[in-house]
Amino acid sequence: MAARIEGSIEDRAVGVLGGGQYGRLLSEAASRLSIPVLALDPSPAAPTKQISAASLLNSSLTHVDGSYTNPNDIHSLAERVDVLTVEIEHVDVQALFQIRDKYSTTGGNLGKGIEIFPSPETIAIVQDKLLQKQLLRKADIPVADFIDLPDPTVESVSQAAKTLGLPLLLKSRRQAYDGRGNFLIRDLDDVQLGLDKLKAPLFAERYATNVTHEVVVVLVRNAKGEIRSYGAVENVHAGKIGHLVRAPLRQGGKDVAIRAQSIAEKVISSLPDGAVGVFGVEFFLLDDGALFVHEIASRPHSSAHYTVEACETSQYENHLRAILSLPLGSTELKALSAATLNLRSTPETAEEVRSVKEAPGKADSPKGRKIGHITVVGPSDADVNDRIHKIIGSFNNDPLVPKPLKSHPLPLVSVLMGSDSDLPSIRDAARILDQFKVPFETRIVSAHRTPTLMNDFCKEAASRGVRVIIAGAGGAAHLPGMIASESNLPIIGVPVKGPTLDGVDSLHSIVQMPRGVPVATVGINNSTNAALLAIRILAITDPKYAIAIEEYRANMEQVVLQKGERLNELGWTLDGGK
Amino acid sequence: MAARIEGSIEDRAVGVLGGGQYGRLLSEAASRLSIPVLALDPSPAAPTKQISAASLLNSSLTHVDGSYTNPNDIHSLAERVDVLTVEIEHVDVQALFQIRDKYSTTGGNLGKGIEIFPSPETIAIVQDKLLQKQLLRKADIPVADFIDLPDPTVESVSQAAKTLGLPLLLKSRRQAYDGRGNFLIRDLDDVQLGLDKLKAPLFAERYATNVTHEVVVVLVRNAKGEIRSYGAVENVHAGKIGHLVRAPLRQGGKDVAIRAQSIAEKVISSLPDGAVGVFGVEFFLLDDGALFVHEIASRPHSSAHYTVEACETSQYENHLRAILSLPLGSTELKALSAATLNLRSTPETAEEVRSVKEAPGKADSPKGRKIGHITVVGPSDADVNDRIHKIIGSFNNDPLVPKPLKSHPLPLVSVLMGSDSDLPSIRDAARILDQFKVPFETRIVSAHRTPTLMNDFCKEAASRGVRVIIAGAGGAAHLPGMIASESNLPIIGVPVKGPTLDGVDSLHSIVQMPRGVPVATVGINNSTNAALLAIRILAITDPKYAIAIEEYRANMEQVVLQKGERLNELGWTLDGGK
Repeated sequence: MAARIEGSIEDRAVGVLGGGQYGRLLSEAASRLSIPVLALDPSPAAPTKQISAASLLNSSLTHVDGSYTNPNDIHSLAERVDVLTVEIEHVDVQALFQIRDKYSTTGGNLGKGIEIFPSPETIAIVQDKLLQKQLLRKADIPVADFIDLPDPTVESVSQAAKTLGLPLLLKSRRQAYDGRGNFLIRDLDDVQLGLDKLKAPLFAERYATNVTHEVVVVLVRNAKGEIRSYGAVENVHAGKIGHLVRAPLRQGGKDVAIRAQSIAEKVISSLPDGAVGVFGVEFFLLDDGALFVHEIASRPHSSAHYTVEACETSQYENHLRAILSLPLGSTELKALSAATLNLRSTPETAEEVRSVKEAPGKADSPKGRKIGHITVVGPSDADVNDRIHKIIGSFNNDPLVPKPLKSHPLPLVSVLMGSDSDLPSIRDAARILDQFKVPFETRIVSAHRTPTLMNDFCKEAASRGVRVIIAGAGGAAHLPGMIASESNLPIIGVPVKGPTLDGVDSLHSIVQMPRGVPVATVGINNSTNAALLAIRILAITDPKYAIAIEEYRANMEQVVLQKGERLNELGWTLDGGK
Repeated sequence: MAARIEGSIEDRAVGVLGGGQYGRLLSEAASRLSIPVLALDPSPAAPTKQISAASLLNSSLTHVDGSYTNPNDIHSLAERVDVLTVEIEHVDVQALFQIRDKYSTTGGNLGKGIEIFPSPETIAIVQDKLLQKQLLRKADIPVADFIDLPDPTVESVSQAAKTLGLPLLLKSRRQAYDGRGNFLIRDLDDVQLGLDKLKAPLFAERYATNVTHEVVVVLVRNAKGEIRSYGAVENVHAGKIGHLVRAPLRQGGKDVAIRAQSIAEKVISSLPDGAVGVFGVEFFLLDDGALFVHEIASRPHSSAHYTVEACETSQYENHLRAILSLPLGSTELKALSAATLNLRSTPETAEEVRSVKEAPGKADSPKGRKIGHITVVGPSDADVNDRIHKIIGSFNNDPLVPKPLKSHPLPLVSVLMGSDSDLPSIRDAARILDQFKVPFETRIVSAHRTPTLMNDFCKEAASRGVRVIIAGAGGAAHLPGMIASESNLPIIGVPVKGPTLDGVDSLHSIVQMPRGVPVATVGINNSTNAALLAIRILAITDPKYAIAIEEYRANMEQVVLQKGERLNELGWTLDGGK
């Protein structure tokens, strides 16, 4: 939810150290809450300053042209505002400690209070990657093994490599972001090169070779310690043009999302009390299902730009709510699927951003710098994927998700059969789903012969984005009912007619479920109706399916009317009265 | 979808006549597209000017302190920008005609082109309510009858009353908005008072006494004549605190929404070619189902604030896209339900806006003026209604929708039975829906005895917001199948066991539907499963139901395990081994 009170202004002004894109989006959210935002940035035309002109209301509310690493400039900003925050961690944190001493919240020597969120203690930890790691390890949070290098030499690094193995990551403790400040040592001959390239102080970290996915959880915490988390998302590299964030997380199923969120909340709770505002917790997901924390950011995060369009409250609005002690807003998704493409400036993007139908604008930032982002929301992953690919396709031709083969990789409907002998009776469901352009998959799962496969399928289906399951079975047809017992999704059962009993055995086995476990049963061998029922259910979230069902019904009516006309013409003997 | 390219700027600057809330929200949307917006407003601290500081990039991009009714000020704005637009209709339109002559788009005498959208011709028509009405009548668009009063006297008004009847609306042609500029004549003795109160030129309009609802359609049109409509919405008066907009429209069913949209598109097409940008078309819905156009606005509309949070592209972004000839954005809803509370300043609101948990901010505008708005989005009308009522409740105690009685007024599930004799078999469905806090209704509809009622029900159900229908029937159980034939919603059929044939008759009548018309059939008399199935379907759009189903299943497991323990303790004789 967003609340807006126009023509009026919050009593308090917010000062932001940094004037880049995060500050700009904070400023946009602040505008809706009528909160003046002042930025500290060397450039008088910094992005944040372009969209906040608080000085029109009060001549003391002016931006500051200066650096977030210069104590005097930080003091200049502090004099103008009531709450200080950051949009980048690499600020002069000593200046923040001094400001807190100077203006205590009970009225400092200038007779005014000031609050700093996140607190200088929090920023001091986050801006030092070794302190971060030590704090996490102390709190029993899974991280890659690491070793401090107080005296970084070829010998001490080689010693670390003995403990942590090769390849080994050599890392700067400070000023490291976006991959900068890291050096990968594959061979001990590279150590000197690494020491030359990186700025001390350094530490060494075990390099995980079995990372399969990058997962991020963004959360907001207020001064009372209340935490709200946005759902886990996946961060995918999109080649040279940038990276893609997909929400909600599908990789690894619900279990990974829940574990990541729970670890992220533990991470934030392990930070000092003044850890207030938005935080990003970055994870690596390993091929064995383990998660470990890669890094913490103490500011709005690039993986949560999508919250502006897709969530009830954006990360920017929640950051302001947290640092101003306003009630935190809901972090629920309001769209069913979202993706954000974060674009880097390359010759391709610089020229083509403006030509993309969905992304008017103009890009002329320095090469390699982030130039902006595009968020797409939609009723399903498949729909969002199609749209984001049209955009990516205009930059390069690397599809991030393989083209659908037999089964769509992002299915909304899963069509199951107990055995391949059920296929002839189930094929019509696939035909209808295909005709209606519904992303679906087909699988053979048997309640009696592959019970483990069935359990695994049920555990994962919803978190993979599947919304409806169609299951066909014959004889003692247990599959639909067993699936319904282990999944919360709506299950449609198709009784398949076997060699005896005319399918009545399957019908009764499927429809006469005990109270508490429903199966939506359709007619014997009528998998057409199973698919049409699935599409009626999907139509609740996607109006294009409602329109398609309407057309299908109209067409059906037309066909029957035509048959009636033909019968009328030819007569009941069908010989035209000859 | 919103696209953002930070740190870069559109070539063209937009000048807005007026610097109020619409300009501010336009400016916010412009910021995401990196388009500089300059405002013309007498106040140097006008809302729009507070959030756009384009001059930081280019010293000529400064706001203008002046009036949109002063030709010199309008010229000053025009000199700074490439495209002019308005956020209020009551501008000096002659100045716009002059500017167009001075700077032709092919390069005027100052060597620069300028575009004005909407065109001066369009604005000239919209700002004169009589010209508006004449244009609409000429285009065969339904409007209330009216009579021009070129010489407004007691006699001419009385003459008009003879034709149009009493009560009669006396209206100013210009400067009329928000109910101002209107005078209701109930008795001919009031005519002189009306003439004294209103500013000529005037006209008279038939006063419709049978208006049941206010409906609004907001649309965007570009220079190529492409039109995209936001869905019809309802405008509800919320007592002294303001008014409420509900989207999508539920009143009158799909038919009213479709008719309103189609008329609105005809309205915009009847305007001159330069009718480019966002338009609001306000309707009255009469008790006989007729719709007539009340008024046109040639700017973003207060009934479409919700588009910022609830639609893929906001009205503000689409206005910019239209006037800058960028591709129009999708107008689809991305949330399933939305409501906006537009607040007026009253002693209650001024004090309490800030105390509302969902609406921090501060309100200190003049009394009676609009002070802001609050938008709520959610997975269902019932959910949004609950949340908006908590907010309204903090201002006053007038519920806008009556409290649910037997049936919820905003149901997601409709529970139908062919006869009240089916109630005992259907009651469990109601119990489960109640237990899961699902908004639902119960109705008696018979396929055989009330076919017309059934048809009407089917036609309206989806557009009333119903998402799933449960229908119970016994014997030759036609109700579920007939409902499925006339509605696109998922239908769950409950076979009711009758005095003969053990319910197998109903089961086969419901489940063995022809291909093309699916009914989700559950076990005989098992309406518990029908309700649980409906909730599984609703869980696709609302995660709280998925959590509730998970808990229900866990609880069921617990109950069976406890029974097992008890059986173990007591033994199969159930006498504890005595």
